[in-house]
Amino acid sequence: MDMRMIREKLAEAGQAHLLQFWGELSEAEQTELYLQLQSMDFQELNSFFQNAMKVSGHIKEEKIDEKMEPVPREALGSVTRDRDMLKGWEEEGLLHISQNKVAVLLLAGGQGTRLGVSYPKGIYDVGLPSHKTLFQIQAERILKLERLAEERHKVKSTIPWYIMASGRTMESSKEFFAQRNYFGLKKENVVFFQQGMLPAMDFNGKLILEEKGKLSMAPDGNGGLYRALGAHKIVDNMESRGIKYIHVYCVDNILVKVADPTFIGFCVKKGADCGAKVVEKTNPIEPVGVICKVDGKYQVVEYSEISLATAEKRSTDGRLMFSGGNIANHFFTLSFLKDVVQIHEPQLQHHVAQKKIQHVDSQGQLIKPDKPNGIKMEKFVFDIFQFAKTFVVYEALREDEFSPLKNADSQDGKDNPTTARHALMSLHHRWVLTAGGHFVDENGTKIPAIPSSRNGPSGTVTPDLNQNLKDVTDLPIKCEISPLVSYAGEGLEKMVSGQVFHSPLVIDETGIHQLVKNGL
Amino acid sequence: MDMRMIREKLAEAGQAHLLQFWGELSEAEQTELYLQLQSMDFQELNSFFQNAMKVSGHIKEEKIDEKMEPVPREALGSVTRDRDMLKGWEEEGLLHISQNKVAVLLLAGGQGTRLGVSYPKGIYDVGLPSHKTLFQIQAERILKLERLAEERHKVKSTIPWYIMASGRTMESSKEFFAQRNYFGLKKENVVFFQQGMLPAMDFNGKLILEEKGKLSMAPDGNGGLYRALGAHKIVDNMESRGIKYIHVYCVDNILVKVADPTFIGFCVKKGADCGAKVVEKTNPIEPVGVICKVDGKYQVVEYSEISLATAEKRSTDGRLMFSGGNIANHFFTLSFLKDVVQIHEPQLQHHVAQKKIQHVDSQGQLIKPDKPNGIKMEKFVFDIFQFAKTFVVYEALREDEFSPLKNADSQDGKDNPTTARHALMSLHHRWVLTAGGHFVDENGTKIPAIPSSRNGPSGTVTPDLNQNLKDVTDLPIKCEISPLVSYAGEGLEKMVSGQVFHSPLVIDETGIHQLVKNGL
Repeated sequence: MDMRMIREKLAEAGQAHLLQFWGELSEAEQTELYLQLQSMDFQELNSFFQNAMKVSGHIKEEKIDEKMEPVPREALGSVTRDRDMLKGWEEEGLLHISQNKVAVLLLAGGQGTRLGVSYPKGIYDVGLPSHKTLFQIQAERILKLERLAEERHKVKSTIPWYIMASGRTMESSKEFFAQRNYFGLKKENVVFFQQGMLPAMDFNGKLILEEKGKLSMAPDGNGGLYRALGAHKIVDNMESRGIKYIHVYCVDNILVKVADPTFIGFCVKKGADCGAKVVEKTNPIEPVGVICKVDGKYQVVEYSEISLATAEKRSTDGRLMFSGGNIANHFFTLSFLKDVVQIHEPQLQHHVAQKKIQHVDSQGQLIKPDKPNGIKMEKFVFDIFQFAKTFVVYEALREDEFSPLKNADSQDGKDNPTTARHALMSLHHRWVLTAGGHFVDENGTKIPAIPSSRNGPSGTVTPDLNQNLKDVTDLPIKCEISPLVSYAGEGLEKMVSGQVFHSPLVIDETGIHQLVKNGL
Repeated sequence: MDMRMIREKLAEAGQAHLLQFWGELSEAEQTELYLQLQSMDFQELNSFFQNAMKVSGHIKEEKIDEKMEPVPREALGSVTRDRDMLKGWEEEGLLHISQNKVAVLLLAGGQGTRLGVSYPKGIYDVGLPSHKTLFQIQAERILKLERLAEERHKVKSTIPWYIMASGRTMESSKEFFAQRNYFGLKKENVVFFQQGMLPAMDFNGKLILEEKGKLSMAPDGNGGLYRALGAHKIVDNMESRGIKYIHVYCVDNILVKVADPTFIGFCVKKGADCGAKVVEKTNPIEPVGVICKVDGKYQVVEYSEISLATAEKRSTDGRLMFSGGNIANHFFTLSFLKDVVQIHEPQLQHHVAQKKIQHVDSQGQLIKPDKPNGIKMEKFVFDIFQFAKTFVVYEALREDEFSPLKNADSQDGKDNPTTARHALMSLHHRWVLTAGGHFVDENGTKIPAIPSSRNGPSGTVTPDLNQNLKDVTDLPIKCEISPLVSYAGEGLEKMVSGQVFHSPLVIDETGIHQLVKNGL
């Protein structure tokens, strides 16, 4: 161990305090710390810190409002406003999938901390009748889409799946996939790679010791993707497979249309190198980042940076002017991604996240702070929108495509296993109704297409009425359709049209399963 | 007691079973039952039942879909799409208020059963800093509006307040108003009247004995209003006061703009005899009744009557075709109300609500059924839309005007004291920001205009970001502004512009109260 070198490096970088407990460490601890320090570029870290602090704080907040411009209509595709285009976009997307030009890239670095579990979110079981995990649901959607493309174009289709895990989720995720035989996908088409870590710092840019011999480290944000893509030669891998288009999404959305052909087809037809799927923000104070133009370049403006006046701005059609709610669901061409990795990534500044960071003080005492005492530096996957030559936005329906799993059930009614499970079952219930089936309760009474559900959106009927309906219905309708049977509701008519079902209903490759009342 | 008469009456009406326990009753019980029976028109009740059963059930459900037509644009006024008209409508409304032509009519017959209390909802304290009840908030909005009209037109203005209570809420409501000196209103301008009751029946139209000597009775629905208006000569009272326009609303909406001058002004300028305020339904499966045309007449179609296909229909602008969510908030001219009471009310059929009704069986055993065993007959306040000559719809913003109190906090995250309290405080927070004030946290850091709140709408930012914000903010912002200070956000600039506040903030007639942290 060349400690002289390290000490110099640290001294120059003003991080000498990291060795303050060196003498107290066991040899093993010393070796570990040495390796950790030796692998680090402290000058780079310091410049990250300085640049990050420059752009962070309230500087942006003050100025951004006047500069915000809405997404022009010509750059927007909407599921509700361009309905006559949807079929054509889907055809286009399926064509590229059949030509093996489409890959999906999953952001799965997050641990289920807020969810109350220590394992990766992708392994979480939200309690569907099938008890499928998020990973399995997404895998089966990829499989089904490959089959749909094959049927349509009579050629074998492959959608490679790139999964970015973090140090915390890599091993358990890989293991889970191996145990489950990759859910029917080919092992070689599921490529795991790991996002980087960065040390936590105090407000003065000093690295923080979590233990006497251990630095406090954290993943570098979902925008760490771009550095990781380079470091692990993922772009080359894509190129060697002939990939042209990449769909990037986040693991926690149970409704995510993985490699959505309609979204991809729209982006390709628009000649876009970068695109984002959004859901409409209808309440001005909904805490969601919105996609807009700033200084002529596209970006996500966080809700915390916007004044109320801007959030409440409306277009002449009455819609919110800034209504494109970002859901971490993006389209990139490979050439754009290459430029990002090779040219733009280094220009991206880190965002500063104030955190409560456990550490040892100069006396070596372990401190658990009750207010933020330091920062973590992160990049965001959407930081690269600014580099797009042709950027487009695709507006999807929230009830069809977005229900993230973030919190534990115990916390509140938002974004938890129950809301995720209900969102999926409600969507599948609607698929059955649209395909001509319907549901009856235990008395054989037809259940309304719009069930009165305590867990549904806030009802505004008179309490009395609402209550009566609750007396006679059993909600929510439990209905789950395997992605292997239908990717987005297609192909169900022959199975359900004109038929009457009891909840719970499960439809999978083995057929229609009507479980007895109070079953499961 | 002329029992012969009664027995005949009952026999003719097929209700003889009501006397099956006569012999077992004490004299007092006999007298009570006699009086109850003697006051009833059993032939009328039977015809109510037959007509109600005819229209109820699934007959409607099958047919209504094809007949539904959306509200034409020319009959629609929208807060978001007609912003340049709002000022003019408000002026018009204030003018009529200043001329004492406007009355408000409150539907307050409902008990807080689902809320978990036995007293009227209007007496409920949702836990605002001021601990004001719904009744007080509404009373103060009336007071403030009278003052605004006076300031504007330099004449004394009165808005009489008609309150329909039920047998269950009348006494406690009256008492509460008396104890509180009518919250500053003149006693003679607060007119209570009682809605009727109807007996519960089994599915064969037989009246139900709740006890051996007591019929099971229930209020006749908020549409009982019209019969009650006649029975208690309320229309005459209005006429004698020179009332021309009536604003009808339901007690449970904490954000209700009582006698909203903008809504009233819109209806008057449109020459409407009947109008409804709605909030936009943005999710096709939201369980809310929508206002539309059926066979050329306006009505509320309940969500339970609509097929999914109809609920998902969209106009070319991408909006839901049937998006006018009914919130029990209506405008009537007095002449329209007169016609309704004198001519149309008797033509209105009752709606059937299946209920679990406690009763004594033929052996005299008390039965508590676990599934519906009978019906209650109700009319709805919106049943009369069909009689309007000129019907208009006014689309308001949900976050500004609608947050009903229906459930107890324990049940779920919907329409409960917490959501009501947060909706009001969020609105008042926005008033302060719009008037040029802002809030800082305990560290003096400016709190974003859009706070990241677990209790707010579902956030769609990356978990990390969201979490960081949660680290540095304290939410929701506690902010309450007395209706006596501002009716709808007006007049606050001089008090808050350029000022910095800590939460909780209370502004009332006595001034600005910044309570110390964790205060109250």
